[in-house]
Amino acid sequence: MSRFNRIAVIGAGLIGGSVLLALLRRKSGPTLAGWSHSKKSRDFLGGFHGIDVCETAKEAANGADLVIIATPVDKIKETFIAIAPVLKPGAMVTDVGSVKASVLRDASILPPTVTFIGSHPMAGSEKAGIAQAKADLFEGRLCFITPSGKENPEALSDLHNFWQDLGSIVRNCSAEQHDAIVAVTSHVPHATASALMLAVAQAPQFDITAAGSGLRDTTRVAAGEENLWVSILLSNAENVVSGLSAVEKNLSALREAITAGDKEKVAALLKAARLARQSLDPPR
Amino acid sequence: MSRFNRIAVIGAGLIGGSVLLALLRRKSGPTLAGWSHSKKSRDFLGGFHGIDVCETAKEAANGADLVIIATPVDKIKETFIAIAPVLKPGAMVTDVGSVKASVLRDASILPPTVTFIGSHPMAGSEKAGIAQAKADLFEGRLCFITPSGKENPEALSDLHNFWQDLGSIVRNCSAEQHDAIVAVTSHVPHATASALMLAVAQAPQFDITAAGSGLRDTTRVAAGEENLWVSILLSNAENVVSGLSAVEKNLSALREAITAGDKEKVAALLKAARLARQSLDPPR
Repeated sequence: MSRFNRIAVIGAGLIGGSVLLALLRRKSGPTLAGWSHSKKSRDFLGGFHGIDVCETAKEAANGADLVIIATPVDKIKETFIAIAPVLKPGAMVTDVGSVKASVLRDASILPPTVTFIGSHPMAGSEKAGIAQAKADLFEGRLCFITPSGKENPEALSDLHNFWQDLGSIVRNCSAEQHDAIVAVTSHVPHATASALMLAVAQAPQFDITAAGSGLRDTTRVAAGEENLWVSILLSNAENVVSGLSAVEKNLSALREAITAGDKEKVAALLKAARLARQSLDPPR
Repeated sequence: MSRFNRIAVIGAGLIGGSVLLALLRRKSGPTLAGWSHSKKSRDFLGGFHGIDVCETAKEAANGADLVIIATPVDKIKETFIAIAPVLKPGAMVTDVGSVKASVLRDASILPPTVTFIGSHPMAGSEKAGIAQAKADLFEGRLCFITPSGKENPEALSDLHNFWQDLGSIVRNCSAEQHDAIVAVTSHVPHATASALMLAVAQAPQFDITAAGSGLRDTTRVAAGEENLWVSILLSNAENVVSGLSAVEKNLSALREAITAGDKEKVAALLKAARLARQSLDPPR
């Protein structure tokens, strides 16, 4: 992390806040600047010794060697525009958004004197906000970094080391690959949990006292802030729509087999699902 | 529990095994008989002092004041047929199946000298089998009992007390009401989790290393034994099919709003889902 003497974090929710807390822990770490659109979060940041809490994103980015944009996905473009004029030549800019292709396109707004490489630390939660932030949030968690292929290998390596120093398991792939992968493992499950929760809540027979751990786990992510998720789903629309169609197809196959009383077919579908689910967890 | 001097548990998986363990804990409890179709489970039961492990269901039921059928749902009818000839006049028979209307119909096979009332302790798990059994499994968990309305109120009260003594929160309703309720809170979430898991595993971009807690939680129940679940879904087909149609409808509404880039519509759907999901958890 030696190359980054001053690091600015723009946006201080769960991820931005956790980056700041993780960096604060280091003994001879970089100087830190932070900004949040929320006065409450800025006040929260002000409570930590060692964070230069700024009044604007531009002020925070000014003079930083590494600028980390940790706003919701739909605010990243306007943040690029806001900070572009003050970025230090040679600075690195990254973001932590859950989609990467649209952010990479928007990053073309940035001056050619800076390097942009997208990041996606997979450490989100349905519990958003800086109050949930923790210094060890990234430890052992996957972090995608999504080079365009045009950057200096040294810059890529600096960003790699930055996330690795925070405990992340870093993985490089293209922004497009990233978006296709996380659609399947994160965005489609989120949208499906939301649709299930809606269907359950709309059912006239829904009885909250009969809700057990199965329903709770299956729908947990649907408690996430819609403001974060709307922009994620819309920015990755093509992959998400194709994944949701696949879920609908499987649901209707299962429903039709149940309607037909086709025991073998229902068993085959449930068995394939069980084997796939069991393969997610390492054997003990 | 005083009325039940001898209790037989037929089928020794998670639920049956846990009933036996809970009853064993009692100092001056009833005498216990147990049977499982599996030699391994019978041997396991044989390891506990105080359980009369039988070679057949009939032998176990013989002379019991309370017979608890804890086999998979699709084996309950044949168990009724097997035990009917030996049931003690005045005995009570119950089952612990996840569907109740079809079991109640099948119970008409039983002699008129016994009382049948269905039970459904909601304490299942994707981890089935007697090795997962625990004496406190029912503590604080909901247990439905589903009287037909024709039984002696005293018999109903005896069964109520039995489950309450095991720590359950007991709730009475008709078998039809029960099946409609659990379709929504358990069977439809299970089938949806299975369909999601299938869609995820089939996706060419599926990458197991990117699977996080969101995907794991959303699909956890899909790891359940298909042999148990096929008969549950088929025995409650009408309710399950109607619930799955509702999930498909909500999924397609969400997919169409994403395809159209309709930010307000996507936000409204996700917000309604968030509020519904948050209402499942009591505020802290």
